[in-house]
Amino acid sequence: MAGKILFSSDIDDPAAWAAALRALRPDLELVDWRAAAEPEAFDFALLWKPPPGGLGPYRNLKGIQSLGAGINQLDLGTLPPGVPLARLIDPHLTETMVDYAVTAVYRHFRGFDRFERQTRARRWAYEAPPAKADFPVGILGLGVLGGAIAQRLRTLGFPVSGWSRSPRPLDGITLFAGPDEFPAFLASARAFVCVLALTEHTAGILNRETMGAMPPGSVIVNMGRGGHLVEADLAALVRAGHIAGATLDVLSQEPAPADHPFYDLPEILVTPHVAGGIAPGSAAPIVIENFDRAMAGKPLLNLVDPARGY
Amino acid sequence: MAGKILFSSDIDDPAAWAAALRALRPDLELVDWRAAAEPEAFDFALLWKPPPGGLGPYRNLKGIQSLGAGINQLDLGTLPPGVPLARLIDPHLTETMVDYAVTAVYRHFRGFDRFERQTRARRWAYEAPPAKADFPVGILGLGVLGGAIAQRLRTLGFPVSGWSRSPRPLDGITLFAGPDEFPAFLASARAFVCVLALTEHTAGILNRETMGAMPPGSVIVNMGRGGHLVEADLAALVRAGHIAGATLDVLSQEPAPADHPFYDLPEILVTPHVAGGIAPGSAAPIVIENFDRAMAGKPLLNLVDPARGY
Repeated sequence: MAGKILFSSDIDDPAAWAAALRALRPDLELVDWRAAAEPEAFDFALLWKPPPGGLGPYRNLKGIQSLGAGINQLDLGTLPPGVPLARLIDPHLTETMVDYAVTAVYRHFRGFDRFERQTRARRWAYEAPPAKADFPVGILGLGVLGGAIAQRLRTLGFPVSGWSRSPRPLDGITLFAGPDEFPAFLASARAFVCVLALTEHTAGILNRETMGAMPPGSVIVNMGRGGHLVEADLAALVRAGHIAGATLDVLSQEPAPADHPFYDLPEILVTPHVAGGIAPGSAAPIVIENFDRAMAGKPLLNLVDPARGY
Repeated sequence: MAGKILFSSDIDDPAAWAAALRALRPDLELVDWRAAAEPEAFDFALLWKPPPGGLGPYRNLKGIQSLGAGINQLDLGTLPPGVPLARLIDPHLTETMVDYAVTAVYRHFRGFDRFERQTRARRWAYEAPPAKADFPVGILGLGVLGGAIAQRLRTLGFPVSGWSRSPRPLDGITLFAGPDEFPAFLASARAFVCVLALTEHTAGILNRETMGAMPPGSVIVNMGRGGHLVEADLAALVRAGHIAGATLDVLSQEPAPADHPFYDLPEILVTPHVAGGIAPGSAAPIVIENFDRAMAGKPLLNLVDPARGY
């Protein structure tokens, strides 16, 4: 079915998206909000954030597709009520997120974080190479991304545990669910990878108490959102020697200000929100599928539950 | 068959080896050279280096098992002629070497080397996450270790090529063999992992000419021996911006002196010869198998060809 799609983002390229959609479906017209003349003519929206004036004038939208795996950049209260909203998870996003987790986990596992500091200090200190059996990894969040990370690390030979708010069976992964099982999860691993959605239930979940309950020498990898981590608590636990290192792709303020306390801690690596990337070429089929579903009144892929918040 | 095994190493623990062998074969007696009373009573030798007086008095040895995957620490000319010598490759060694290669390759692939420098410089510079299809990896040396590294990286999604002196068929790997195909191999990848044996043919194989023929922005991972790399040439190519980074587990002098020029180059990570580790527990069955083969006059596993040098 032909249609007209509104595009709105200050970080994505409208021309690349228009080309990727047109290659598959020439009958779909993608229009950047700056060039959108008749708002009521639009059927669907593809957006990172709503256009400056909001979506009110676009009163015939039958679906909204986020340009991100998360929807925290959208203020749900400002979206038109009753219009289904979908998160976007494409194969390239999943693979780049898995790659990032593999890079960060192996870097800590093989002590490359320590060797970097030693190299800069012109020191040479041998240590025997470790076995993966002694380096269990815990994943916070077992959705599409967390599940893919858990399975890849397990395939590579790490013992893997996972925690989610509700039980999610995953082959070969030691599972913990809900607040009651969170303490046991925190004791189950040496490296903790956070890929949770950010909601009122998960904000600040990595704090003095929870990170303090991890085994001494544990490391943190945050690929979720900056709001999952209480940054001052991590800095204190690193200074105290309880947390041995951290790899943080997300911070409470991005870009991080040059005087951020993490920059004073050599145990902490900051990466500039590069873990996952959505590629128009691999995501276009998913956007088209959701457009067709919205037109047909069917449930969207990766539909957001407003009550749950993701 | 019962037997008496001589042990000689200044870096391995005789008690751990004796315990690992005794657990499987109580009839085998491992004796450290310092406690060896009747040299002619020994049947077999397990050694990193020969004892200070050499192996001459041990005139009934039927086999020698190196305690390393390489034999460069042994001066082949000083070993008793006609006694078969074997390299030692155990599952723990292979897995730790593969882990090291995975860690180093992903670190460069995902730009963690650059992000480390940016973090220390308090800088935040976004870049889109890369795809493995655009980061081909070339392996120098396709023996047991190189083959395992090539297969793991291929399974993880990297395009992988490999070079060896003689052709070695490996499923899914683009293969190059001999000096004639070396230039094509050098053009085939962006990351180069060296796990060659060190011989007169491979000494200095990573030099100004060969690294200069790699695509601009290539990275070097040396897990072979320090002698494979002409260190001054690498330093010059890094300073010139042609080689973007290097991860070096082996150097011409180990431990590296504090004034080593590599310590002045932030693009170079030095690790203290930690890539692979032999564990008595996982290697003991291989040592016992070779002891039995030596007693029976059968060819040892990983037998060294003195003419080839490995």
